[in-house]
This record gives sequence, structure tokens and C-alpha cells, in this order.
Amino acid sequence: MEISITLTNNYPKYIQIYEQIKKAIVTMNLSSHSKLPSKRTLAESLGVSVHTVKEAYEQLDAEGFIYSKERSGYFVAPFEFEWQQSNNTKPPSTSIETNFSKIDIDFHNGHIDTASFPFSSWRKLYNKHFQPENLINNTSQGEPSLRYEIANYVHRSRGVQCDPSQVFIYGGIQHQLQAICHFFGPTISAGIEEPGFKRARAIFTQNCLHTHHIAVDELGVTVPAKKINLLYTTPAHQFPLGMVMSAERRASLLKWALTENAYIIEDDYDSEYRFKGLPIPSLAKMDQLQRVIYFGTFSKTLIPTIRISYMILPITLVDAFSIFYKEQKTVVSKIDQLVLADFISQGLYDKHIAKMRTLYRKKQQAIISSIETHLSKKFQIIGEKSGLHIVLKLPNYLREDEAIEKASSVGVQIYPISTSYHHPSNQPMVMIGYGGLSFEQIEKGILRLKKIWCP
Amino acid sequence: MEISITLTNNYPKYIQIYEQIKKAIVTMNLSSHSKLPSKRTLAESLGVSVHTVKEAYEQLDAEGFIYSKERSGYFVAPFEFEWQQSNNTKPPSTSIETNFSKIDIDFHNGHIDTASFPFSSWRKLYNKHFQPENLINNTSQGEPSLRYEIANYVHRSRGVQCDPSQVFIYGGIQHQLQAICHFFGPTISAGIEEPGFKRARAIFTQNCLHTHHIAVDELGVTVPAKKINLLYTTPAHQFPLGMVMSAERRASLLKWALTENAYIIEDDYDSEYRFKGLPIPSLAKMDQLQRVIYFGTFSKTLIPTIRISYMILPITLVDAFSIFYKEQKTVVSKIDQLVLADFISQGLYDKHIAKMRTLYRKKQQAIISSIETHLSKKFQIIGEKSGLHIVLKLPNYLREDEAIEKASSVGVQIYPISTSYHHPSNQPMVMIGYGGLSFEQIEKGILRLKKIWCP
Repeated sequence: MEISITLTNNYPKYIQIYEQIKKAIVTMNLSSHSKLPSKRTLAESLGVSVHTVKEAYEQLDAEGFIYSKERSGYFVAPFEFEWQQSNNTKPPSTSIETNFSKIDIDFHNGHIDTASFPFSSWRKLYNKHFQPENLINNTSQGEPSLRYEIANYVHRSRGVQCDPSQVFIYGGIQHQLQAICHFFGPTISAGIEEPGFKRARAIFTQNCLHTHHIAVDELGVTVPAKKINLLYTTPAHQFPLGMVMSAERRASLLKWALTENAYIIEDDYDSEYRFKGLPIPSLAKMDQLQRVIYFGTFSKTLIPTIRISYMILPITLVDAFSIFYKEQKTVVSKIDQLVLADFISQGLYDKHIAKMRTLYRKKQQAIISSIETHLSKKFQIIGEKSGLHIVLKLPNYLREDEAIEKASSVGVQIYPISTSYHHPSNQPMVMIGYGGLSFEQIEKGILRLKKIWCP
Repeated sequence: MEISITLTNNYPKYIQIYEQIKKAIVTMNLSSHSKLPSKRTLAESLGVSVHTVKEAYEQLDAEGFIYSKERSGYFVAPFEFEWQQSNNTKPPSTSIETNFSKIDIDFHNGHIDTASFPFSSWRKLYNKHFQPENLINNTSQGEPSLRYEIANYVHRSRGVQCDPSQVFIYGGIQHQLQAICHFFGPTISAGIEEPGFKRARAIFTQNCLHTHHIAVDELGVTVPAKKINLLYTTPAHQFPLGMVMSAERRASLLKWALTENAYIIEDDYDSEYRFKGLPIPSLAKMDQLQRVIYFGTFSKTLIPTIRISYMILPITLVDAFSIFYKEQKTVVSKIDQLVLADFISQGLYDKHIAKMRTLYRKKQQAIISSIETHLSKKFQIIGEKSGLHIVLKLPNYLREDEAIEKASSVGVQIYPISTSYHHPSNQPMVMIGYGGLSFEQIEKGILRLKKIWCP
């Protein structure tokens, strides 16, 4: 019996040995019950350690391709089926994709101040909840303790009165919007702000929904004139333009929804960070959840990479929704949910938000003052009452793509507003987030923009 | 100025004070700029601590309902809009839903042996990866390091040759099946095994897809006779009946898919636990991913409550799929992904599976021997070659619902097979999982079933 084995340096030698012997077995080049060379013999002939051959043999044994007899060695297992072999024997490429980039100042609107996170508190809670009893029995709607804490939180912070039974936990707002779309069915027509959140628009598109693009003015989204069953809106801080929906407009929208029998999805994605004036009550509070589906997230207030969001359904929809999704499993880790519930109930969440509100307010003041100092008056800031990003209207001589490209050439990443539009806009604007940057980076970034934008 | 505040014991007093003052403000019962009682005065009149009032005032201040003047106290902030007030002032109910049940032996097929999990290794990795740099920048397809480890794992364990670029991370198989459905569009027709996995069927239903129910025989799912674009199947361990798809049937299915230009979703949900005979190669291995979309999960091999699954797309679909979902964010925690990648790369995953395979084999032997010893020959075990559950065919005198109800009356939970059927079946069967139970519980559970089933 002969086995021809060729080793390269691309990936572990024991896997190569294992693979080549397995191939010889399944292609019938090694016949059933024939004896394999001893570990020592094969190791010597291949110039590898006996341990390497041992690992390969054990893997083959574990998978049933070979079997061992005490004091006799290893033998090929009986193997009848003619495998359909592919010629492609390429192992997975060993290079891990990386994203090399020269950007060192990233004004990303989704970034947060990561260093300020209470790491040790979270880790302590994680270790507390990572226990045998929490490794089984996920609930589909979300852990009761977390839903209870969320119901209390939206009550004290946004005036939304709801029962934990109305709270549903998801892995991000796209995921819950998807759940809503299927629940309402494929024949509804949807509305989205123009400009609006492109990731929400993508969900409507994936669902092949008939979608209307509803203009926004300085008071927020306008009242839809066309028949719409479901309107997605961002009243607290319009995405991306940043205006706060006026109280009058809120009342008009609620009236519209009631009259038209429509539902409003209120995405309250960063209402925690309001820096000027009184907090504006949520639509869900004014409506007391008859026509409003309230969306909240922990991405801005906690950690965007732990994917937890929630929605609060009008009580009249809860039963039908639960029945519709009775076979659904959650996508959110139970451990993370329990940790978060505990984090909120211990007061750590409110404390963290209060701290971050102050920090982000200062960062916002810094970026505004930096822009006002260094850029000319032709650059106009909008959307600065709230949230973690501002919008910069560009002067006529600077196109949006040009502005972004120039910024990139000096290591600064800023973001287009045009991608938030369904129909092209002729006002060049860019989005500048500041949550994740230090005060020094903010100043440095704006100075670099000055250099290439204001020659 | 008068404020009437009534306190109950239902929820924190400071929230009650905060709420009632806020209500008085927004309903104009407290006029703008009027002075609030001092903390001490209000505390005394309500019989609470000064600290409680302080908390309420601070919350009102933080939300902008009142403001403070140094050395003068708190005042009502100007407030112009007539809020649409609801009469419903019920706070969230404080009772957390709980599921009281007398079941103490639960033969759930999704349960695992939680005590055997390497807790300290996982916790150590979690603490290592829970760092500032991992709190931002989720990738939508999944972390490269995890996709790399998965590509290697499916290669060494299931012979599936793929590149990490073909691996997509999701929060459970329903979630990835959903992604596939939208990608293929609303006009395709889908096929699912009969009986089959009801949670997969639910996704087809939610998508309003035209769905065919394809009979299974003793060799696995039969080759579809009708035009189907997408067939969902569980070859390694048919769910729920448990047969292993024969090599011939696999070849026929692949041939069918190639001829019909159809895609096969191979859900390999518990192929790691095969107890008898040689491992049967995955469809994806035989096919080398031309027509097969391979589904894998960590629910059975690691932890079901940390929701991580993956799918491997044929290389020809990768680009189109990525473009279709270019605006999509992941639902899976980046931290968990990094922890899992490290867990696999350190060899802990393979070691854990090997350990669990031995343990579950013993548990399966225990339950089979227990059934054979205690129940009469009229109870027939099927599907015992693989996986974490067996199916018990019931004798004619015992209906499925009756068997389950009787079991429940003695604290034993077993599960119906009928819910896996689209069309009613006349063979009474129940599903018995054993992964989560101790050897003692298994024996005790079967003895209790003997008592009420075999009088």
C-alpha cells in the first residue's frame, strides 16, 4: 500500500495529512481494512513530528475513516459509496480580510465615546449572568426582566406608558422593522422621510413594498397626502437633517394617522442626547400608543456592537403580533439581555446616559465652535439641537463628493447626505458625527478640512 | 401654589413624585416660573426622605420641566404646548411574567448539557474581547476572524470547501432563511420536508411564498416532483423523524437541483452528534457548493441562548447577495463573534464537541436502554443514529395529545411530532430530547412514563 502525501506551508500539517489520507480513502485508493503506516514511520518519511501524525490519525479516527486495533495500529474503515469528488481541493484561504485605510479621523455618526463605558461594571454583570441556568430557554419576545426595565425606562425618560407585554426585543431597528413589514403584509404602502434613513428604506425595498417618499420641511416630516398604511419617521432628531419635529406637526401627524387608520413608526434613535431647550415629548407619549409603534435602541446610549433594540407596540396589536410570530425565535443573546436588565435596574444606565449627555454636549460645542472659527460663514451648520451628528451645508463651489474626497485625502472621513435621498437633491451637504472622537481629534479634523476646503 | 401628591407602595416614591409634579406642569396646574416647595418641606409633608425628593427634582430638572436658581430653589420651566393628556396614568405593571409549571423533567430537544460548558474559558475570552476597540465598527457579514474559523471548521469536520468570503453570520437559522427568501424574491416557490421543521416553514409562510410539502421516506426527503426553486432539508438528521439521508438520495437531490436550476438549503443543525456508523458527508461537500446553501449553528454544540448561526453561500451567489444586503447591519454582537472565533482557534470548540459527543452518546444509550427496559415493545424508537433527540412511535391505544397530557400530569414534558406536519398524520409519535437531562432524570422520566402509559 502506498500513500503519496505532499506538504506545503499554507496551513497546519496535520490537517494536510488528514485530508490527503481521507481523500485516498474516499477515492478508493486505499482499500478497506488495509493497514496504515505506523505513526513513527509516516512521521519520519514526511519529516514531521510523531505528534502531528497522531493528530491526523485521531481526526480520521474520530470521523470514522479509519479505526484502531489495540497493539496493531490503524486500519482503513470500510467505505462503500463512490464519492463525487471535486477537483477543487483548495483549503480556506488563510489571509483574513483587513481594511487598510489611511483615515485617522473618522466623523462617523454611529460611533460613540467607547472609553467612557463602565467596563468593569458590565464585565462583572456578564460573569454573574453567564451561568448554566441561562444557557437554555430563550424567550422569543425578550427576557421579562429586560422588558420590564425598558417599560420603566421609556416611562420615566420619554413619558411612554406601556406594559412590559408591549415591549419586544430585537437585534437592531432593521430587524424589528422587518418584523413589522411581514406582520402588516405585502400589500400595504409604506412611507419614509425624504431624505430619510437609508437602512430603513432598504427594508421596505427588500419587502417589495409600495413606498412613498415624504418630504421633510423645517418642522420635520410633512403630513402624507397619499394613502399610506405605515409611516417611518424620526421626530426627535430627523435623520439625517437633524431638525426636531415641532409639537404642531406631531399633533397633525397623529391626527392624520387616526383619520387614515395608519400606523406611525417613531424611531427615537438618539433622543437621549438633546442639548438645547426642553425635551420634546415622544409621539408615543402624546398618542399613548394607539397609532404609534415606538422604536428604541441601545446603540447610541450603550454599545452599538452589542445589538439590542426594542419596539413598543400599541396594546391593540400585541396579541395578533405574538400569534403571527408564535414560531419565531429571538436573535438576541439571553445573557446580554439579562446583563442589560441588571445594568438598568442598578441605575448604571441612567447614570451612564447622564454622564454621556454632558460629554457629548461639550463635544458638540467643541465641533460647532471649531467649525465657526475655522471654516468660512459659507459652511452652515444644521441639526445641532440634538443627537450625535450635525449636518454641514456646503458652499456652492464645493460638491458633496468633492468635499468628501478632499477630506479623505487628508485622512478625514465625513459622510454624504445624498445617499439619504431617494430623489437627487441639489443642495450639497455632508454629515459629521462626533461621538467617537476626542476633543483634540475634532479640532484637528476641522483644521484639516479648512486647509483643503477653504484655500 | 398647591401640589397634591399621593404616594402608593407600587413603585419607587421618587418616580411617583416626579410623575405627579410633571403632570401638574404639563396640564398647566403649575404655572411657569412658580416656585416649588423646598426639598425639605416637601419631604416632611409627604413623609419621605429629602433624598427621595431630591431624586425627583433632579429628574425633572434633567428633563427640563423645572430649573434651579442658586440659593433660591427650583422653579417651573416655561411650558407652552397643551399636551394631549391621556387618562391612562397607569405605570408599567411591576409584576414580572413568570412561567410557573410543575414540570421537573423536560425532554426538550433544544436543551443541552449546560453544566459541561467550559465557563471559565469563555468568561476569560469575553473579558479579553470586551474592550473599547470592539465597541464600534460591526461588519455586516460577520467578523472576518469568525468567518475564517468557520470556513476551516466546516472544512475539517464536514469536508465543505469554502472561502471565508462565502460565510455569513446570522442570529439563528430563521434569520438567515429570512435573508435567503428576500434575496430570491417573492415569486419563487419553496419546498419543505413533510414532516419538517416548523420554524423554517413559518418563515416561508411569513414571506407568503408558494410552499410545497415534500414527503420524506426512510431515505430522507424525496426528490420533488413539482417545480420548486428552493428546497429546505435536513439530511444529516431529518427533523423531526431523525433518519439520515442515504448517499443515493443525496446524489439524486443534487442532480435534481442541477437539472431544475434549484437551490437546496442543507440545514446541518446537529450533524456533530452522530453516534452510529461513518459520518455521512454533507450535501455541500458532495456538491462543492454549486447548488447547496449550507446552514450551520452553534446552538447544539455550544450555547443555544447565545444566538449565532452561519450560512455558506455558493460562490456564484456571494456578490449578488452582498449587494442586495449592502445597507444591512448585523444582529449579532461583535463581542460574541470575537469570543467565539478565539474559542474555536484555540481548539476549545473541537475539544468541547468531542467531549459532548461522548457524553451525549452515553445519554442516548441510557435513554434507549431505559425505554427498552421499561416500556413495552409497542413503543418503537426511531431516528437514533444521530442528534440530540429520538422519536417514539406510540402504540395504537395511545394518542399523541393523550400521551403528552399524561406525561405532563406526572411532571414530564415531551413534545408532539404532529406540529411538524402540514397535513395531519395518523401515526401517533412524540419527540424526546435528552441533551439537557442527567442520567438520573432520564431514567426517572422514563419510569414515570411507564407508570402512566403502560398500566
